Amino acid sequence: MNNTFGRNLTVTLVGESHGPMVGAVIDGMPSGVRIDEKEIMTLMDRRRPAGKTATARHESDIPQFLSGVKDGYSTGTPLTIMIPNENVRRSDYDRLADTPRPSHADYTGHIRYRGYEDASGGGHFSGRLTAALTAAGAICMHMLEQEGIHIATHILRLADIEDRPMDPLKDMDALKDKAFPVLSDEQGEKMLEKIRTAARENDSLGGILETAVTGLEAGTGDPFFDTVESLLAHALFAVPAVKGVSFGSGFGFADMKGSQANDPYAVKDGKIITLTNHNGGICGGITTGMPVCFQTVIRPTPSIGIPQSTVNLKTMENTQIRIGGRHDPAIVHRACPVIDAVTAIVFADLLIGRYGYEHFGGER
Amino acid sequence: MNNTFGRNLTVTLVGESHGPMVGAVIDGMPSGVRIDEKEIMTLMDRRRPAGKTATARHESDIPQFLSGVKDGYSTGTPLTIMIPNENVRRSDYDRLADTPRPSHADYTGHIRYRGYEDASGGGHFSGRLTAALTAAGAICMHMLEQEGIHIATHILRLADIEDRPMDPLKDMDALKDKAFPVLSDEQGEKMLEKIRTAARENDSLGGILETAVTGLEAGTGDPFFDTVESLLAHALFAVPAVKGVSFGSGFGFADMKGSQANDPYAVKDGKIITLTNHNGGICGGITTGMPVCFQTVIRPTPSIGIPQSTVNLKTMENTQIRIGGRHDPAIVHRACPVIDAVTAIVFADLLIGRYGYEHFGGER
Amino acid sequence: MNNTFGRNLTVTLVGESHGPMVGAVIDGMPSGVRIDEKEIMTLMDRRRPAGKTATARHESDIPQFLSGVKDGYSTGTPLTIMIPNENVRRSDYDRLADTPRPSHADYTGHIRYRGYEDASGGGHFSGRLTAALTAAGAICMHMLEQEGIHIATHILRLADIEDRPMDPLKDMDALKDKAFPVLSDEQGEKMLEKIRTAARENDSLGGILETAVTGLEAGTGDPFFDTVESLLAHALFAVPAVKGVSFGSGFGFADMKGSQANDPYAVKDGKIITLTNHNGGICGGITTGMPVCFQTVIRPTPSIGIPQSTVNLKTMENTQIRIGGRHDPAIVHRACPVIDAVTAIVFADLLIGRYGYEHFGGER
Amino acid sequence: MNNTFGRNLTVTLVGESHGPMVGAVIDGMPSGVRIDEKEIMTLMDRRRPAGKTATARHESDIPQFLSGVKDGYSTGTPLTIMIPNENVRRSDYDRLADTPRPSHADYTGHIRYRGYEDASGGGHFSGRLTAALTAAGAICMHMLEQEGIHIATHILRLADIEDRPMDPLKDMDALKDKAFPVLSDEQGEKMLEKIRTAARENDSLGGILETAVTGLEAGTGDPFFDTVESLLAHALFAVPAVKGVSFGSGFGFADMKGSQANDPYAVKDGKIITLTNHNGGICGGITTGMPVCFQTVIRPTPSIGIPQSTVNLKTMENTQIRIGGRHDPAIVHRACPVIDAVTAIVFADLLIGRYGYEHFGGER
Repeated sequence: MNNTFGRNLTVTLVGESHGPMVGAVIDGMPSGVRIDEKEIMTLMDRRRPAGKTATARHESDIPQFLSGVKDGYSTGTPLTIMIPNENVRRSDYDRLADTPRPSHADYTGHIRYRGYEDASGGGHFSGRLTAALTAAGAICMHMLEQEGIHIATHILRLADIEDRPMDPLKDMDALKDKAFPVLSDEQGEKMLEKIRTAARENDSLGGILETAVTGLEAGTGDPFFDTVESLLAHALFAVPAVKGVSFGSGFGFADMKGSQANDPYAVKDGKIITLTNHNGGICGGITTGMPVCFQTVIRPTPSIGIPQSTVNLKTMENTQIRIGGRHDPAIVHRACPVIDAVTAIVFADLLIGRYGYEHFGGER
Repeated sequence: MNNTFGRNLTVTLVGESHGPMVGAVIDGMPSGVRIDEKEIMTLMDRRRPAGKTATARHESDIPQFLSGVKDGYSTGTPLTIMIPNENVRRSDYDRLADTPRPSHADYTGHIRYRGYEDASGGGHFSGRLTAALTAAGAICMHMLEQEGIHIATHILRLADIEDRPMDPLKDMDALKDKAFPVLSDEQGEKMLEKIRTAARENDSLGGILETAVTGLEAGTGDPFFDTVESLLAHALFAVPAVKGVSFGSGFGFADMKGSQANDPYAVKDGKIITLTNHNGGICGGITTGMPVCFQTVIRPTPSIGIPQSTVNLKTMENTQIRIGGRHDPAIVHRACPVIDAVTAIVFADLLIGRYGYEHFGGER
Repeated sequence: MNNTFGRNLTVTLVGESHGPMVGAVIDGMPSGVRIDEKEIMTLMDRRRPAGKTATARHESDIPQFLSGVKDGYSTGTPLTIMIPNENVRRSDYDRLADTPRPSHADYTGHIRYRGYEDASGGGHFSGRLTAALTAAGAICMHMLEQEGIHIATHILRLADIEDRPMDPLKDMDALKDKAFPVLSDEQGEKMLEKIRTAARENDSLGGILETAVTGLEAGTGDPFFDTVESLLAHALFAVPAVKGVSFGSGFGFADMKGSQANDPYAVKDGKIITLTNHNGGICGGITTGMPVCFQTVIRPTPSIGIPQSTVNLKTMENTQIRIGGRHDPAIVHRACPVIDAVTAIVFADLLIGRYGYEHFGGER
Repeated sequence: MNNTFGRNLTVTLVGESHGPMVGAVIDGMPSGVRIDEKEIMTLMDRRRPAGKTATARHESDIPQFLSGVKDGYSTGTPLTIMIPNENVRRSDYDRLADTPRPSHADYTGHIRYRGYEDASGGGHFSGRLTAALTAAGAICMHMLEQEGIHIATHILRLADIEDRPMDPLKDMDALKDKAFPVLSDEQGEKMLEKIRTAARENDSLGGILETAVTGLEAGTGDPFFDTVESLLAHALFAVPAVKGVSFGSGFGFADMKGSQANDPYAVKDGKIITLTNHNGGICGGITTGMPVCFQTVIRPTPSIGIPQSTVNLKTMENTQIRIGGRHDPAIVHRACPVIDAVTAIVFADLLIGRYGYEHFGGER
């Protein structure tokens, strides 16, 4: 299914940037998972544009639950989340209709949907759909936290500025509520300065995120084809602007020897651990019981204010555009809660498969 | 489904390293696709261990078609490929039963399958299953070639040696039949020397592969969740040892500005192209019509002859192992045809969805 | 996926009887299918309760398209249909909370959803969800009609009154707009009289529907496990109150010999036909090119005004209930457009698989 | 997926009647389910042709386990069952190649697979594939029996001879080992006489089977679209010759009133039961905890020795055929273990979804 992800717990994303709403349907949610609007909004707020480093389009983004929730708990029937689009300005986009913006989905969407697409504001391709994805993920994250599983993401690199690597056992709490999630505030300030400079130049920036998941038992996943890496990557690459995903030492493995890359086992407090975690908590596609660690690269936002070459789809002639409207000089920080959300969806699905839906929820 | 991949064309992998066979079932294969054993063997031979840079376990690996093939063409009903295991030496592995090899799937498989797994030779996790995967992919590759779609992979980097980047429009033919697929034979020789050194040191090496797919029309894929990146990554991360996948400029996007990362459109010979291809032929999860380009990182083979720390699962005590048996100092080159195969499966499935199964096959 | 049906075109049903809405998400809809609200309402109106033979709960049931529709055509991205619930009277159901109504889903839903279900008015189990299903099916039916495929259903039997069997080539047009779809108006009047009598007795009635699909080419379907019968039955048994599905001569086959049950082939106007159609247009799970014909049995509405034995779930004691509220003495006639809708969804999905999504839509 | 059934536990059927084998792949089998060849053969033997009332084609049908089994237990990785075809006589079928047998899948398969099908002996459509299906089901049945769940099927009607209806709580054991499963041996003898007469007349007979499943807890299934009825019917209609499926009172509901059709609840021994079971143990698509009861109609075998009208596909002219070869005058009795097998697969899948795969197996 094109727009659905998951097996036992599935998420379907619907809506367009300038239509009446964006939304998500969660099917397979166990009964009795607490649906705490405040908790969901906490994650969603970190995704929302804010301040000078973000688009001027502001939305209150308060999720409405149209089905599957009763008295603050999931019923177990399909859970529908709707986020109304409020601050819609179609006119910004009208004049772009025939001149696809480079590295946006305007052209590919036009071919895929044969001219019937609602291209305004990016339509179904808009980053706005990640608001609904984040809401769905926040519910899954709550469910996982009841099992002692925690997820956190920080900006490992933005342009040429690096944050220090995450120590999953120490650093995760500090990241929970940060709108600009970095471990070193000093480096974070340098990153923000980079973003402000890019904004002044009408340009945009990309970066690399690092995510960790703790509290997972060993033994979840499958070798072919539903490895934990496969499922995470499947979902992560659906997040707009993600162009690379790697686990543990990732692309650094190319320069390592087996003797450096292998993670030796040891017994600690009666439990089997690995002394290093180069493989990011996954061997043979299955969790080792160590933190699952991965990186995602976020490409620079394609919307820039600098003139760009493109074509006119009607006249089939070369032309130039300069994108006005409202956009972000970097979405790297705003992507963090989306990555957390997607990660939560993947593990919620995997664990429901392993332990059954009756094992979860029942919180009242 | 754990061990099945695809929607309209699916591949299921079965078998264990030291069981009677490894195999694949392809369901949804269009009727009348030529099943040329020689063509299939050409791709499979590149995956087979050969010479001094490979395991001493040799298998003839001749695929048998148990169903779905008649008179050299696919019938359209499930196509079963069986590759008998011949050169099986269980004894090599018996003494490892209770001491999981670091960064193999021994431990995670033991937990996942609760002690019932056939761990010998890696069991279902063995790289040997990629023989069946490659056979299945070779059939899909033939089907795509009838549509003018071509796939090739080379070793972009092994340890610290780099091949020159691929120019998809010029370099692909040269890679088709190479057992050690590089564009610069000089750099290839340096890589081989590195592998020989690692073998002498009882150690192993990793590397980065670069793949290109040409001949794809614009408009294939979906934004959420079945982006072309998502589907490729899902399948690629099921290949043992793959720990990272990136598209186009990949992790390099972190250091680029939007103005550098965007691919401007232009009209050329009445067709829309992009002047650069930083996004690897995919925008919004959908093909642009430019070559699809991606990188995969292959971690160093975990089987090394150097003593390693591990635990005894029965006594729960720390211990050491030294892996004997037969293994590869590097599988980077042998992974190339597997990546090609997996890529072919993904695009065969995607295109059958777009154009219908009746569009393909019918070669007689 | 529990609440999703289909492979290439999927429908997900959401909502509860007394929640804010019921709805459907169609994913995989080809681009450029005309979305004609009037046409959709025509089918939906036949499902709506009306007159003396139906529940007194009246809803305007005007579908709102929250996504996937632009300027009257499907975009190709997920199409969300929302039908607000207006005439909600929760109080009718409150006193039933602990005493499950016999042969409703109150008890089974209570166990399945562990007490978290929204049981009011049947919740997610309510026949009201078929309003959204019918809207989704009406869009698919329009798509099929562009291909010359037509679907019609009539009441073959209600209590002991029989309509004459349908001749698919002659009778289908006459059934299109009938609120009480029978071929013999005289028999229809007798059925209505039966319903009125049952209503007076606070009881309810069931019946058998006969459906035909014309215009299908030979060759659609698969032997294992996605036979046309399998897919239709899967979807039909999801319609509340359906307890039996049979094809062609159906249960009558038990009393036939092979020589009577086989459908001989013949050439007519250069086309292969069968001289009889005992197998209901399907052999080996695949369409023969003759009309697809099947029967569904609709059990009597479980809501009756007569006192019934049940249990109190809190005290675990036997007790009696008498269901007040608003309900239908028969839903047999109202089920006809729902069966049509479900049938349209199944064939839309099958044909998109066969010919590809690009083959359909593009109506502008 | 065309040839795969299930979500958490899936079965894929492969092979052709006159190819090297027929087989099944079970994916998602929990680890540590006992694979007892004798137990599997017991069910398979009841499906095998035997005596005068069956085809003269005899096969030993001993299943080989090519993967997923170790030391008599399922490993948890894909389990491959292969049943070699031994007694193959292609010549019987050669002269039928261009003249499709009425109500077989010859013609529909020819169109579906565009002439590339292996039509010999029915090819992939052959009843022989149910040997593999039965083997797969026998394993699932064993798994369910560990949970106290039992399945049995008898011939309720053959031609105009009726067996007495099954009382699930008393009659099931008696049916377990019967090659001709009836409750009244006297009626069974009459049925056999009917079959012998049909055989002498070169004709064939059909019948109705009744199946019961006991030991199921309340609360398994989903309202839309994966009702227990939907899933069972999906799988049952894939069994060749099944043309109708009904639950509980089935088509008899048409003549019942709500007051007769409803099953009142009562408390018995501290457990909630229904006093009647007209709904066949399923309400709202979910199990009630009472036995699940359903009927399937088996059409008369299409292979008859009487001359029949057909067409020549090459010349497109009307012609006659008389089918020689080896076939059954009735497969009604042989279908019983196949129905049991299919039922076991459906419930194994459903229960793994509810309780998780870790809940099952682990028998050693």
